[in-house]
Amino acid sequence: MTLPDTMRALIQLHDGYAGSQTGPEIEDMSPYVALQDIPLPVPGKGQVLIKVHLAAVNPSDIHFIKGEYGQPRIKGVPAGFEAVGEVVAGDTPLIGQRVSFFATASGTWAEYALTDASGLVPCRADLAETDAAGLLVNPLTAMAMGDILRDSGADSFMLNAAGSQLGKLLIALGRDYGIKPIAIVRRAAQADALKKLGAAAVIVTGDPDPLEQARTIFKSLSPRILLDAVGDQITSDLFFAMPAHARWISYGKLSNAAPALTQMGQFIFQDKQIEGFWLTRWMKQADPARIPEAFSDIQRRFVTGRWTTDVAGIVPLSDAPGRLPAVLAQPDGKAFIDPRQ
Amino acid sequence: MTLPDTMRALIQLHDGYAGSQTGPEIEDMSPYVALQDIPLPVPGKGQVLIKVHLAAVNPSDIHFIKGEYGQPRIKGVPAGFEAVGEVVAGDTPLIGQRVSFFATASGTWAEYALTDASGLVPCRADLAETDAAGLLVNPLTAMAMGDILRDSGADSFMLNAAGSQLGKLLIALGRDYGIKPIAIVRRAAQADALKKLGAAAVIVTGDPDPLEQARTIFKSLSPRILLDAVGDQITSDLFFAMPAHARWISYGKLSNAAPALTQMGQFIFQDKQIEGFWLTRWMKQADPARIPEAFSDIQRRFVTGRWTTDVAGIVPLSDAPGRLPAVLAQPDGKAFIDPRQ
Repeated sequence: MTLPDTMRALIQLHDGYAGSQTGPEIEDMSPYVALQDIPLPVPGKGQVLIKVHLAAVNPSDIHFIKGEYGQPRIKGVPAGFEAVGEVVAGDTPLIGQRVSFFATASGTWAEYALTDASGLVPCRADLAETDAAGLLVNPLTAMAMGDILRDSGADSFMLNAAGSQLGKLLIALGRDYGIKPIAIVRRAAQADALKKLGAAAVIVTGDPDPLEQARTIFKSLSPRILLDAVGDQITSDLFFAMPAHARWISYGKLSNAAPALTQMGQFIFQDKQIEGFWLTRWMKQADPARIPEAFSDIQRRFVTGRWTTDVAGIVPLSDAPGRLPAVLAQPDGKAFIDPRQ
Repeated sequence: MTLPDTMRALIQLHDGYAGSQTGPEIEDMSPYVALQDIPLPVPGKGQVLIKVHLAAVNPSDIHFIKGEYGQPRIKGVPAGFEAVGEVVAGDTPLIGQRVSFFATASGTWAEYALTDASGLVPCRADLAETDAAGLLVNPLTAMAMGDILRDSGADSFMLNAAGSQLGKLLIALGRDYGIKPIAIVRRAAQADALKKLGAAAVIVTGDPDPLEQARTIFKSLSPRILLDAVGDQITSDLFFAMPAHARWISYGKLSNAAPALTQMGQFIFQDKQIEGFWLTRWMKQADPARIPEAFSDIQRRFVTGRWTTDVAGIVPLSDAPGRLPAVLAQPDGKAFIDPRQ
């Protein structure tokens, strides 16, 4: 394949961190990224160049371009973490192969991206592009948490932000593993869709009586694990309402609240505990054979319809700055950038 | 031995719980216990009668007689949990043996106590009565926590309420295990004695800058475990100031505060966690050989002077209601009741 000298990309307009914490919402992308033609990145040792087919837009991408994520921005370098594409250059046997990947060197919101050869996930031919573009972060997190749920011996678990992409993957996984999901959502309108997906029960925190709802549910279900992406006071209150031996596993912090521990005696007498989950740590600690096995499972789950990717919209790279905010503002579904349009 | 028909005892004046939570302080015992002559208890199946030599007065005893402990009072039955004495009746090969014990059927603040034959700890002849009277609760808790510290691989740990009897046992144990204790106390006046005992550093929460003190200490010590009997906001703040991988182990709740979790991201990115310790659960989960081995270690530690029992005062049973509050009000040392006086 003959490669061009330049490519179109959404490049970052700032270096480092902003010092603010404004959350994953965005109304206007123009302060953060701009469409430009830039030189094609050249793979260094251990790197590969990938022609991007379709790039995902995750909340972490928005945190990142706003300078509010756990790693610094680099001005002039394309944004975008996740994508699917074809390997076109680099020291790898995977040249010509379609792969899902996480960009470590030059971002995915571009015609070409640069990443480490070691992290590529070859895609099955029958895997849809929209599934392949977001194959790494959310699905692998869901599989890791599924392992934690199975290892715990729990027959039920709770999760908040249950209407998120990850929440839906977890509900379907719990359904398939026979570990009954109890979904915590803010709006009653989300309840029916999540029950249809596999939630055994739904707690609506926007209702006046979420703790009463929980206590009623706990008469028939005994969740042992609370998967928490929010970290607010109602999360803490629900944890203390859970049966003995409950584990509160924090993996995100959508709320800015500092929740209070109102019943500390439960740590002592009910063997409860609070811990964290970080995909990066899990990947380091997991059995090395588990990760390729998990990616095989993940692809099979999407191809057979056990998991689905809800698409909020696919915007052409050239229109992305103007059109993405409206797509991201939709309450459900994932946004994508197509650099071939 | 010919046994009498009656005995003198401090009996409970109330049944069940008080419904209040006023802490371990007591100014007047007369609303809760009274000195009476009552029939000698008779051992049932699996029980033994023990002639009490010396009974301990622990904070849990005060919680209990006030109706504020985790088990209900029984009107007319003697109070008192821990003691040393001689086995005088029951189906046991230990008749005539001096034992430390925890009274399960008729309390230790009496001339005779009744308990399960299975829980007796035979005492070495060279073990002092004041050590033997409090051999179970605090020393076994300290040994259990010592096991947790050793298993964690930590080379330093923190503990609050460090001037308590248990705190002093833990400091001496850390010193002997080579796991450096960082003592958290309220008053600067306690610091020197704890350093002399083996504390590598002391944090004074009554000072204006306890977090600054902690950060300075953490430049040379990296505590992995926080043993917490207090559960207030400064405990939480110190936990979040600790290095990565820190474990906050709650085993008591002297404060009524509901501490806030101000830096939840540390659960995720720094692998921190909060858990509880309960001696009852530890005893069920420990290797069955560990407990007799621990009691052997405990006695050796007291006899060789590695541990010492600080005695605030020994009061005769007949004077106990009037004299105990003044002895208990002393900031350091343990109170005892002598039923042979």
